[in-house]
Amino acid sequence: LAASDFPAPSRLELIALPGLPHIVAGDDLASLLVDCLRRQGLMLDRGNVVVLAQKIVSKAEGRLIALADVVPSARALDLARRTGKDPRLVELILSEAKAVVRVGPEVIIVEHRLGFVLANAGVDQSNVNVGDQNATALLLPINPDASARSLRDELARLTGIRVGVVINDSWGRAWRRGTIGHALGVAGVPALLNLRGRTDLLGRQLRNTEVGLADELAAAASLLMGQADEGRPVVLVRGLPAGSDDGTNGASLLRPAAEDLFR
Amino acid sequence: LAASDFPAPSRLELIALPGLPHIVAGDDLASLLVDCLRRQGLMLDRGNVVVLAQKIVSKAEGRLIALADVVPSARALDLARRTGKDPRLVELILSEAKAVVRVGPEVIIVEHRLGFVLANAGVDQSNVNVGDQNATALLLPINPDASARSLRDELARLTGIRVGVVINDSWGRAWRRGTIGHALGVAGVPALLNLRGRTDLLGRQLRNTEVGLADELAAAASLLMGQADEGRPVVLVRGLPAGSDDGTNGASLLRPAAEDLFR
Repeated sequence: LAASDFPAPSRLELIALPGLPHIVAGDDLASLLVDCLRRQGLMLDRGNVVVLAQKIVSKAEGRLIALADVVPSARALDLARRTGKDPRLVELILSEAKAVVRVGPEVIIVEHRLGFVLANAGVDQSNVNVGDQNATALLLPINPDASARSLRDELARLTGIRVGVVINDSWGRAWRRGTIGHALGVAGVPALLNLRGRTDLLGRQLRNTEVGLADELAAAASLLMGQADEGRPVVLVRGLPAGSDDGTNGASLLRPAAEDLFR
Repeated sequence: LAASDFPAPSRLELIALPGLPHIVAGDDLASLLVDCLRRQGLMLDRGNVVVLAQKIVSKAEGRLIALADVVPSARALDLARRTGKDPRLVELILSEAKAVVRVGPEVIIVEHRLGFVLANAGVDQSNVNVGDQNATALLLPINPDASARSLRDELARLTGIRVGVVINDSWGRAWRRGTIGHALGVAGVPALLNLRGRTDLLGRQLRNTEVGLADELAAAASLLMGQADEGRPVVLVRGLPAGSDDGTNGASLLRPAAEDLFR
């Protein structure tokens, strides 16, 4: 979308939704979300964006895997030795990956089957102790953009309002310490804004100017979610321009390998 | 700082400040900012964070360079041929860099003298046409953390309130399309939050969990600034926990080269 069709807001409000129940496979997230909003006396409005933590989307979609059911391959056993990770976790990481990009201490950077380059294929391992027989690991949703679109459609069906939906997750970055929220799935809000053709204050043309709007939203919402638990996995963002479904989504944020200098 | 000392807010409000004048070398940003806040009827409060676009800090500090004064070296001429960039701009980029990390079409990824790995050493080139005799280029501040700290001290002197200050800039990333706001200089707000030792809802220990809080703030503020002009280069963030000057700063967000798999 061109930035002129999506002017920067002068005020933005972010509200973390409390009181969402613990999510399990099969839960209807949209209905739970609408109940939660009603209890808080919050109304959805056009231009609102609902940011959901990947964890609850993955859980609702049944992506929690019992490690006891995973049999590590020879390759997983080798990588587990090199990284100090649980071999069953490594097997899951490899099963989610198209390619291994780098291997470091306790980390395997992969190109995920969805195209994202990230540590450990986004498999949540915070709770996995090596060899633990009761351990589980949570995989990314099968298709986060489809999940976002479906949540957007369900929310519209339940409330009559077409909001934007972003599914975010906290990932590390090259060159910088600390995780930040990234947009994994996006619907109904521009993932990328194109400033090409726009001019600066002196009337000169801007170049090379695509803005990762959905990533900025994902990072902003992450400030309210905290990372330690599931306490506040949903953030409502108010103040963006309304109704700009330009068809860009989480996949639009992927830099094609041919243009990428770092894999 | 430990996350327990800086709980995630349940509401966050971001307000873009209008009406800041065009900034030139020598301007007193803190005074201009306080005037601007007063005109808007906005009061600073403890726990507020002021996010300023790098451009205005650099301009106030006299970092605008006339390209006509720059004589490109042989190395700059060579890199200019390979990248299609103005040789004088390349000279400035090299003068700001410790090392060239990658060279691509129209882009030179460097390790900046400040340690950041970024495109074109952060030298703003949106307005530079090759060979233009009147062109200028804007370099990053000499020491953005010192600039942030000095702005924080000046704002405290003028208002009595010690806020957090983040200087942000929009940079591209490895693997992902679109620029997002990054924290360049930080004072008075934790740049990195350490979740180590914190437990999840089931009481299990979290690992590998440092959050790039200042980068998330920088990205959030960027949503309101727009990227096309200087119209709204200051964003006030309200709702964070008050007064946590833990000594981390923009430099804390740099991943040491020895731990970095991507340079």
